Amino acid sequence: MSSDRYIAFATSPVGHRLVSALGLPAPIHLERWMAGRTRPVEGALLIGGSGILAKAASGLLNRLTDASYADEDGRFGLPRWTAEHGPKLKAMIFDASDITDVEQLVQLRTFFQPTLKALSSCPRVVVLGRPPETLADPFAASAQRSLEGFTRSLGREIRHGGGVQLLYVGEGAEDRLEGALRFFLSPKSAYVSGQVVRLAADDSQVNDWTRPLAGRRALVTGASRGIGAAIAETLARDGAEVVLLDVPQAQENLEALAARLGGRGLALDISTDDAPQQLVDALADGIDIVVHNAGITRDKTLAKMSEAQWSAVIDVNLKAPQVLTQALLDSGRLRDGGRVVLVSSTSGIAGNFGQTNYAVSKAGLIGLVQAWELELAKRAITINAVAPGFIESHMTAAMPFTVREAGRRMNAMGQGGLPQDVAEAIAWLSQPTSGAVTGQVLRVCGQSLIGA
Amino acid sequence: MSSDRYIAFATSPVGHRLVSALGLPAPIHLERWMAGRTRPVEGALLIGGSGILAKAASGLLNRLTDASYADEDGRFGLPRWTAEHGPKLKAMIFDASDITDVEQLVQLRTFFQPTLKALSSCPRVVVLGRPPETLADPFAASAQRSLEGFTRSLGREIRHGGGVQLLYVGEGAEDRLEGALRFFLSPKSAYVSGQVVRLAADDSQVNDWTRPLAGRRALVTGASRGIGAAIAETLARDGAEVVLLDVPQAQENLEALAARLGGRGLALDISTDDAPQQLVDALADGIDIVVHNAGITRDKTLAKMSEAQWSAVIDVNLKAPQVLTQALLDSGRLRDGGRVVLVSSTSGIAGNFGQTNYAVSKAGLIGLVQAWELELAKRAITINAVAPGFIESHMTAAMPFTVREAGRRMNAMGQGGLPQDVAEAIAWLSQPTSGAVTGQVLRVCGQSLIGA
Repeated sequence: MSSDRYIAFATSPVGHRLVSALGLPAPIHLERWMAGRTRPVEGALLIGGSGILAKAASGLLNRLTDASYADEDGRFGLPRWTAEHGPKLKAMIFDASDITDVEQLVQLRTFFQPTLKALSSCPRVVVLGRPPETLADPFAASAQRSLEGFTRSLGREIRHGGGVQLLYVGEGAEDRLEGALRFFLSPKSAYVSGQVVRLAADDSQVNDWTRPLAGRRALVTGASRGIGAAIAETLARDGAEVVLLDVPQAQENLEALAARLGGRGLALDISTDDAPQQLVDALADGIDIVVHNAGITRDKTLAKMSEAQWSAVIDVNLKAPQVLTQALLDSGRLRDGGRVVLVSSTSGIAGNFGQTNYAVSKAGLIGLVQAWELELAKRAITINAVAPGFIESHMTAAMPFTVREAGRRMNAMGQGGLPQDVAEAIAWLSQPTSGAVTGQVLRVCGQSLIGA
Repeated sequence: MSSDRYIAFATSPVGHRLVSALGLPAPIHLERWMAGRTRPVEGALLIGGSGILAKAASGLLNRLTDASYADEDGRFGLPRWTAEHGPKLKAMIFDASDITDVEQLVQLRTFFQPTLKALSSCPRVVVLGRPPETLADPFAASAQRSLEGFTRSLGREIRHGGGVQLLYVGEGAEDRLEGALRFFLSPKSAYVSGQVVRLAADDSQVNDWTRPLAGRRALVTGASRGIGAAIAETLARDGAEVVLLDVPQAQENLEALAARLGGRGLALDISTDDAPQQLVDALADGIDIVVHNAGITRDKTLAKMSEAQWSAVIDVNLKAPQVLTQALLDSGRLRDGGRVVLVSSTSGIAGNFGQTNYAVSKAGLIGLVQAWELELAKRAITINAVAPGFIESHMTAAMPFTVREAGRRMNAMGQGGLPQDVAEAIAWLSQPTSGAVTGQVLRVCGQSLIGA
């Protein structure tokens, strides 16, 4: 899938020596989740800090790994870890939710400094906090908000293919933590770093963790290849019955993939006027998960962009998700407790040279998430966006060499992501227990430098 | 002030030819506001679109420039501009506030495409929209939100030292537009691009535009040199009586600058326990504008950072602004209708390698802005943050060459900003009529690539 020959070179015995002698970027092969695996963390998990974790589901730590440690003797009944006497660390949780003033922030340094000498490969870090906007004390809110600066900086420093996230856990959402930790502490989030996610109290059912999407039916648009195909595969792996949609020209690929996944193909041009009605008719049995992945590019500077190039991108990438979702809502096809995920882009966040049309469409999807959040919540439906950065695909393979190389290296992991990385994020957001997450944008970008 | 010799080379006759032959970055000298100037726009201003502008203060366009044009005959009684027959453009306003669905977004292409062949140097562009979060129709909200993708992309494409912003104007805030346009369409915002600002309805008095801060008293911390000195100079230029604060070691510089500006020096270490009381005592006559600019860096990776390096940065950059502002509020020294501006940083937004302490402090300031917004609004006090990117100063002059060069070029303008650029943004936020802007973060970064 990846055409990144540099990473193959940099991780070879000779290449590794050369790369470090020359001070070149030294990306490493990121671990990914393999089908059949059960433990989120395979290795040592270190816990520190205090607050939320004490209220989390009991047995949580044992379900994450069979090797948990604490930074102090006797906490959670766990053995104490020290840099001198503990194993290399595969994962860390620092619970910063009790921090109420800026002087306590030094706990972050105290906890993390020794760990940085004892990292295993691809270490995953989660910092827990309270959503600043829910705190009455302005200084506490400021201290909690400052955790963003910490986690994003640590994400740039951690290396070893590691990732660092901040979870703001709302009052009453402590029992929603397991789903998020299973994602963020495992290789499912391999290419996610520097992200801030809010969990809200929610009473949706807790997953069967081995097949979290069992009994759910999922629609994926643009599913015949690339990121869309990976999404379909991952949702099917997690137990969903999949309906794969793509344009009629892609029908052959689509049917082959659908057959392999035990799902159904649906050939439909989503930008036509009667697409909403056709979709409603095709989904007579209802749908639980809708992933709007179909997207096109027609890159040109605005000075040279034709009206056709402008409109094609807006129609497919933005208008189609709007009207199709509306039709599924109005017809009742999208069931209560459903999940809508829109595939946005870092270009929609930061803008991009030569992509006024594409950035408009992808920013509009973020707008849709925010505009629909509350209305859909009345039916316990969540709506979120995933914003991929540089993902190795047929789109990026077609880029000029220098643009492709810049895109690949300008992130904390020094490499592009894989379609699976986007798919895993979407699969997590699609879980029943992810009702705690809505109205949000999750970047899958290796903590790209690019932002706004 | 600037030690950027590349820009001097690239803008020399020989250098310019070489730079364009080699495809190197071609930054140009940005225009800045000069004391004594009165018109925000010196050159042609083109107006397009519809909605808010029709409700704006009458005579607004005539006060911005003496050469306004429209994209259609007869609009606002202005002559029609075409790329073939109009003058080069110094500024543009596109009013997108009437756009309610994504198909209408093509108006952006129609309006801007011909203008891109007719740009004067340092063109300033403002797109007007409605805050998506205030719109009931989800598709209208999505379309308005997509303007962010457009303006940020156009900012990357415009070149010529231009800047592009999006102003979301709330219902009833149409009469607040002039202050924002005087900033964003003039060289006062030379190094600001790709920004999104919200204006809210507000009944604070409108400025005397020639001396907008006349009769106001302003406190500036860290004022003896660099960005702080530029802030003090700019506030004084705009009519404020200035109180310059810095550490006792800087007293000589401070008193000299205070004397030149007709202000007062105040030698005080803001990180001491009795600093709040000393400040309250020193400002017995009250204060209208408080600019927390004082800041330090102690850069180290977290693995090597001492507790002293951590705490020094947090204490000066974050804790001091918290407790000093609290003391000024509690004592009543900060007057109703006051303005608080905190100097944050792009590092506080995106995080930065080697700056966990600094990023924590600067993210915490953003948290403070958000946490205090509503409480301070009860007294008509605004609180905002300015987030500088790479600004030429003693801090950046001390950076290693490659880090400095990367910081300078990785933005849409291919150069670092000047202290004056940060100062102009703060001076605008400090105006009486800027009561329309609160709880916001304004980047002054030349649309740096770096973000989150």
